[in-house]
Amino acid sequence: MGEKRKLRLGTFLGGTGGNIASWRHPDAVADAAINLNYYKDLVEKAERAKLDLVFIGDGLYISEKSHPNFLNRFEPLTLLAALAGETSHIGLVATLSTTYSEPFNVARQFASIDHISNGRAGWNVVTSPLEKSALNFSKTEHPKHDLRYRIAEEFVQVTKGLWDSWEDDAFIRDKEKGIFFDPEKMHRLNHKGEFFSVEGPLNISRSKQGHPVIFQAGSSEAGKTLAAKVADAVFTNHESIAAAKEFYEDVKNRAVTFGRSRDQILIFPGVNIIVGETEAEAERKYEEIANLVDIDVALNYLGRYFNDIDFKQYPLDEPFPDLGDFGAEGWKSTTEKLKKLAKEENLTLRQVAQRVTTPKGGSTFIGTPVQIANTLQEWFEEGAADGFMICPSVLPNGLDDFIHYVLPILQERELFRTEYEHDTLRGNLGLPKPVNRYSKTKAKAST
Amino acid sequence: MGEKRKLRLGTFLGGTGGNIASWRHPDAVADAAINLNYYKDLVEKAERAKLDLVFIGDGLYISEKSHPNFLNRFEPLTLLAALAGETSHIGLVATLSTTYSEPFNVARQFASIDHISNGRAGWNVVTSPLEKSALNFSKTEHPKHDLRYRIAEEFVQVTKGLWDSWEDDAFIRDKEKGIFFDPEKMHRLNHKGEFFSVEGPLNISRSKQGHPVIFQAGSSEAGKTLAAKVADAVFTNHESIAAAKEFYEDVKNRAVTFGRSRDQILIFPGVNIIVGETEAEAERKYEEIANLVDIDVALNYLGRYFNDIDFKQYPLDEPFPDLGDFGAEGWKSTTEKLKKLAKEENLTLRQVAQRVTTPKGGSTFIGTPVQIANTLQEWFEEGAADGFMICPSVLPNGLDDFIHYVLPILQERELFRTEYEHDTLRGNLGLPKPVNRYSKTKAKAST
Repeated sequence: MGEKRKLRLGTFLGGTGGNIASWRHPDAVADAAINLNYYKDLVEKAERAKLDLVFIGDGLYISEKSHPNFLNRFEPLTLLAALAGETSHIGLVATLSTTYSEPFNVARQFASIDHISNGRAGWNVVTSPLEKSALNFSKTEHPKHDLRYRIAEEFVQVTKGLWDSWEDDAFIRDKEKGIFFDPEKMHRLNHKGEFFSVEGPLNISRSKQGHPVIFQAGSSEAGKTLAAKVADAVFTNHESIAAAKEFYEDVKNRAVTFGRSRDQILIFPGVNIIVGETEAEAERKYEEIANLVDIDVALNYLGRYFNDIDFKQYPLDEPFPDLGDFGAEGWKSTTEKLKKLAKEENLTLRQVAQRVTTPKGGSTFIGTPVQIANTLQEWFEEGAADGFMICPSVLPNGLDDFIHYVLPILQERELFRTEYEHDTLRGNLGLPKPVNRYSKTKAKAST
Repeated sequence: MGEKRKLRLGTFLGGTGGNIASWRHPDAVADAAINLNYYKDLVEKAERAKLDLVFIGDGLYISEKSHPNFLNRFEPLTLLAALAGETSHIGLVATLSTTYSEPFNVARQFASIDHISNGRAGWNVVTSPLEKSALNFSKTEHPKHDLRYRIAEEFVQVTKGLWDSWEDDAFIRDKEKGIFFDPEKMHRLNHKGEFFSVEGPLNISRSKQGHPVIFQAGSSEAGKTLAAKVADAVFTNHESIAAAKEFYEDVKNRAVTFGRSRDQILIFPGVNIIVGETEAEAERKYEEIANLVDIDVALNYLGRYFNDIDFKQYPLDEPFPDLGDFGAEGWKSTTEKLKKLAKEENLTLRQVAQRVTTPKGGSTFIGTPVQIANTLQEWFEEGAADGFMICPSVLPNGLDDFIHYVLPILQERELFRTEYEHDTLRGNLGLPKPVNRYSKTKAKAST
């Protein structure tokens, strides 16, 4: 009580980093996305820095045009399980789609990782934005945006229900009396909903966190509602502090309308930090990254958001073409944002493609350590963020630089921890352990 | 060449062991099935003993009557991934059902574990014998036996196809030229079959083994055919060497009719070994285990194979009741075997229940170290087995005893290795690395 509110920090670990040409950076490990020792090094580094969590993305369809880090990468759950043994305090969050999985399997796997990591698992709920994912899952059609979110909501509710299959003290294991468990504390969910029918019980006990931490990463209307209903944390992305503040207020208010408190849901804007000892050095680092990207690659990458349109048909250095309502169904919020940006800043096609592959401004913070720390503090204190997801455009440099230059300033300002407070992810995030829905002693939850 | 044929050894690691009351044994770790340190100890022990592999079972439906080790256990794939880091040579095999999963997800997860373990993953293909599994997966009906096996065959073929998505040398990663991969060496499966339509490619490269090792564990007609078509190894169970020899010949001959060679498919009968320095000590150990089981528990357990029939309605010490064709659909071969055994040996209901919970004879070998070694050697040399799956009724004792008493004799007789020959599971099993179906140089496969 009375303790200064601390910001939470996660880092997105996606192979060589978010930039599409990051693998070409001289310091990048080109096979990073499938290199276990590389991931071990990064997660150990993040734990030494006392970050709250590492975050693993995912996707279910690739083509020749995909980000190189997406072509050949570890499956996230098996990666998390492998990383758990290397660490003891840092949270381990992985992305998994509710559109092409079964709640029973997903509930089991995350509960299992929560046991394996001793209470450090988190699930980033996504609905698979890529329409062609259907082709890898024996479906003729990818469900539309709103339908996917309705499926997702029921899926998460079923999963949470399965996580309550066993009360915390259900297993007695009295060898003398031959009593292994208390049948009164085993519960069948008997869920029958619009999309799922699941009897239960889950064949794994309640884990240390009760429920693994739920992240949600969609920023559409349906995404915000889903987050407000079921998520512990939101991974989002904004082009300005104003937009971030609006989103922050919106999601917190929605949560309140669903009977939750504002501090039960944490907002993590994703930020890409490029930091140098001087502004010039930071700028030089940005240029180095931007120059790695071939313009053809940039146009292909941009096309991904627009139904794989071939942007080479348009002149490079003239204003971004008017595509009307055209845009891939799963990337609505991104395509709208890009069209708006192009119009407002009068950008050419080349500039839009560069902004997508090597962003500048918006959620990319380029500057000196103090400038970066000031910006983070401003977002944090002005109601735009409860914490940040550090999404380096190039790894390991982006993370190394953040830890080396920026983190000490945040710690000096008492904005970030110098030691872990807890050994669970929920504990460190300040989130309560959910009370089992079947528990007769509905005591106030504690971390 | 000319080297003496060696037997292969795996061990089934299921919590406190196969016996339903094993958790009550004084030496058992009662929470074993959800205790990671326990599994780490066992797998390290098995690796020091140079066993080929550890094997993890699975199931998708539990009730109050389930084996205690099934109620609350790790999900197998996450467990394998967590164990990979603790070991360097031993194979890691997990069970996963083709009835309630998606080939794209399964192919990814096993490929990922093969990468994480550096070539030591294996998949035990099952079709889920428990009819009520459907209730956990939003299905109104569990597919019938033959249908499940047709689904399984296509599922495994799709998975193998996805594992060939990338040729072994597809990833170039030339930073200077900006060439990450060779598009000629990326392949779409474009599978359209009776049950699955999967485009691909898989978003993970070919792993060190090419394909993780495929185990198959059904012994019905459909199971044997599936094994002969797609499996590298079969985990089976027989009540006598005669039955085992017949099965062995049958499966090998079926493999030949499908154009495979006899040594491309290895037969692993499961054996439960209870060994003592003397016969009397072994017998005493058996009695100790049998006495852990409550008769009501034994009847419940027996009922599991017979549609959860309540056997308490029948007299305990009279001949096993005539149930006609009655039996749970998924356990056909087991129920047939039990009915036959009861008839042949004129067993009472109590004796059948005891035989199920604490087997004696058949694949349970009870005796001195030399007696056990002789039996294993006989099975191995007389064409009943290529190796064995050690399935201890009580862990860790059963494994400890086998390693301590029996293994040195097998090694002395040069029937078993004293050092690993390879660092992949395929290599140690003497199985070739599958050639990629798309590879233009169809060179002879090598391990």
